[in-house]
Amino acid sequence: MTDRATATKNDIVAALDAADPLGRFRGHFAFGEPELIYLDGNSLGRMPAAVPTHIGNLLNTEWGERLIRGWNEGWMELPRRLGAKIAQIIGAFEDEVIVADSTSVNLYKAALAACLAQPHRTRIITDNLNFPSDLYVLQGLTTVRSDLEVVVVPSPDAIHGPTDEIIDLIDDTTALVSLSHAAFKSGFLYDMSAVSAAARHHGALTLWDLSHSVGAVPVDVNVVGADLAVGCTYKYLNGGPGAPAFIFVSRDVPAVLSNPIPGWMGHRSPFTFDRNYTPSIDITRFQTGTPPVIAMSAMEPGVDLVLEAGVDALRAKSIQQTDMLVRLWAELLEPRGFTLNSPRQAERRGSHVSLGHEEGLRIDMALIREMQVLPDFRAPDNIRLGIAPIYTRFDDILEAVHRIARVVDERLFEGYSTNPPAVT
Amino acid sequence: MTDRATATKNDIVAALDAADPLGRFRGHFAFGEPELIYLDGNSLGRMPAAVPTHIGNLLNTEWGERLIRGWNEGWMELPRRLGAKIAQIIGAFEDEVIVADSTSVNLYKAALAACLAQPHRTRIITDNLNFPSDLYVLQGLTTVRSDLEVVVVPSPDAIHGPTDEIIDLIDDTTALVSLSHAAFKSGFLYDMSAVSAAARHHGALTLWDLSHSVGAVPVDVNVVGADLAVGCTYKYLNGGPGAPAFIFVSRDVPAVLSNPIPGWMGHRSPFTFDRNYTPSIDITRFQTGTPPVIAMSAMEPGVDLVLEAGVDALRAKSIQQTDMLVRLWAELLEPRGFTLNSPRQAERRGSHVSLGHEEGLRIDMALIREMQVLPDFRAPDNIRLGIAPIYTRFDDILEAVHRIARVVDERLFEGYSTNPPAVT
Repeated sequence: MTDRATATKNDIVAALDAADPLGRFRGHFAFGEPELIYLDGNSLGRMPAAVPTHIGNLLNTEWGERLIRGWNEGWMELPRRLGAKIAQIIGAFEDEVIVADSTSVNLYKAALAACLAQPHRTRIITDNLNFPSDLYVLQGLTTVRSDLEVVVVPSPDAIHGPTDEIIDLIDDTTALVSLSHAAFKSGFLYDMSAVSAAARHHGALTLWDLSHSVGAVPVDVNVVGADLAVGCTYKYLNGGPGAPAFIFVSRDVPAVLSNPIPGWMGHRSPFTFDRNYTPSIDITRFQTGTPPVIAMSAMEPGVDLVLEAGVDALRAKSIQQTDMLVRLWAELLEPRGFTLNSPRQAERRGSHVSLGHEEGLRIDMALIREMQVLPDFRAPDNIRLGIAPIYTRFDDILEAVHRIARVVDERLFEGYSTNPPAVT
Repeated sequence: MTDRATATKNDIVAALDAADPLGRFRGHFAFGEPELIYLDGNSLGRMPAAVPTHIGNLLNTEWGERLIRGWNEGWMELPRRLGAKIAQIIGAFEDEVIVADSTSVNLYKAALAACLAQPHRTRIITDNLNFPSDLYVLQGLTTVRSDLEVVVVPSPDAIHGPTDEIIDLIDDTTALVSLSHAAFKSGFLYDMSAVSAAARHHGALTLWDLSHSVGAVPVDVNVVGADLAVGCTYKYLNGGPGAPAFIFVSRDVPAVLSNPIPGWMGHRSPFTFDRNYTPSIDITRFQTGTPPVIAMSAMEPGVDLVLEAGVDALRAKSIQQTDMLVRLWAELLEPRGFTLNSPRQAERRGSHVSLGHEEGLRIDMALIREMQVLPDFRAPDNIRLGIAPIYTRFDDILEAVHRIARVVDERLFEGYSTNPPAVT
């Protein structure tokens, strides 16, 4: 590339950043290491700048001073109040979503509830792009319902989900179709409407894992006819490391689903301490134990920022940015041995782009250690470049691509060994 | 009581506080409302003064700056590292305890694991003093193993657990005996050795809920021969509202128990993203989803303070204090219509004392609103006075008893209605 071409590109990205209607949101996040180009917001979102003060107040005033009275002064409502905010983000009614537990535990509750409500249906359909924990949870259900069969449909090419095969497989024996909306490696985005319609046609339920899409890709669970969903809040919702997850149960699910882990916080009246369980009539019954107040509270500023920015605007910017990244890959990285391990079509792609390279792991390490670029790596060869449109600049993407090219050109990866890093 | 008797009592408690070897620990806690006599540490422990700085550092430096790298720089180890500290508190080996999920979810995992490992045993034995959430979880297991029967043994008098009846009931059909070590209403303390021995004799497993004893009553799971235990960290461990819970699985359990909610954080190698679940060989397999880092980190200062104080010293002070409270009840409160709803014998009593009164709920409200005394209330008539020996003074107890007497003498409770308060 000539200097002139570089200069032109720099001008273009500078203009894009200057014109970015979401540009002001960057100022609402912490940048503890200002020079770092962080491209892992799809794994752990940045901290909203408001969090330390927000949590400081919770600690000093609520826990430190109000003590147990905090439960009557807002804590009890947190799971529902945050659930109502996430409901807005995913197109649910506010009484269909609650924040509780981890994504995996919520997936278990939702999947087992669905399977127990349909005793004559014996199949769970999923795919091999699904997040491993989801596969473990689904497989685990066979220990409590031994007649269940988990069908893991292979993807045609490790990038795109096997949509047609799944739709063909759904029949009257299908209890549940459980898929990740956006695939964790390739970023492939399912057509939730098509899959959900096929499931409803056969009376099967759908359970979507929204972890890799919520907050970056518009989701409209009720428009597409999703029955159940779960998702994580520490990625594009910027909720903090290991922040509690959410669970959505549609009002339209024909059977009344029961929480298979009935706990006191799902009881209609927890503080009567009845010895018999009477579930709450609403989504609250999918709560089990005492909500983790500090972790939930830390999540709120991030959720509020996504609501303020608006998912449609975030998606528009995300598509601009991932499209730009795909063009830069074609121009600068494909010639250096990188493959595009994500869908080319923007409408089938989430907000991260995976680039494959036979030296992917070592390139990733060199980027982190020497280049102040922080993506993550997923075996066998994916460098995942996560774009969090709420704080990622166009300039970050161009600069990251240049630095990736430099690592290859100068063979900076050669100093690293291939012990896999343990990043989530 | 004469002024002279009052003066003498004041002198005695002042001397006890002055001589208290644990007195210095009070300075390690926050007192946002210094005049408040807080007697609900058995429900939500006070905040250790170190927490805001500890969490501020986590937010600003770890999440805010190190971002995803935090997982490699300590976060991944938190559940095991905190588990090892709690192991010291409950007499377990450090590889037998992990911090994860809520108490109810851990109880579910432990109880279902135990029942699935013993398919030919069909009975779970518990009692009606157990915490309702525990009863719900145990009852819930029958939806996934329909041959299970949950036997809820009634207590003889609503104060003492039915130890002899339970021991008589355990036989070769018993899969699990699941009890709260300390009862949430009366504070009755089970003889873990006697129950565990009877269970082992018949090849049944025991599962103890230590929520109301851990950090205040010595527990030695391996000496008494407990198989499984769970517990909460937001009471006497001062871990913060809704802090994550812990789970103990003894090395001695004859069968290898499997986590019935298999998740990626329980996999032997989570970051290889295998599609097949291979459980960790140690207690880590009882983890399911991503650990809630902020909530776990907030728990650590409280656990450290209990380790530093030592549970034997805490128990010695707790017995002195609950014995004093029982004596004051006999002298000042029994004549005013209060019953002792906790065991008289110190060795059968945890660290809270419940006093019954036909106007209990309204007296509780008057204490909170007018007397700067904060206990809690459990239907039908229990005012629970929780003693957290790590920060409760002898003077607090004497003063609280005087104020309770005053509420009755001046009929200050009459202004309150009997809508039950929603405190945990």
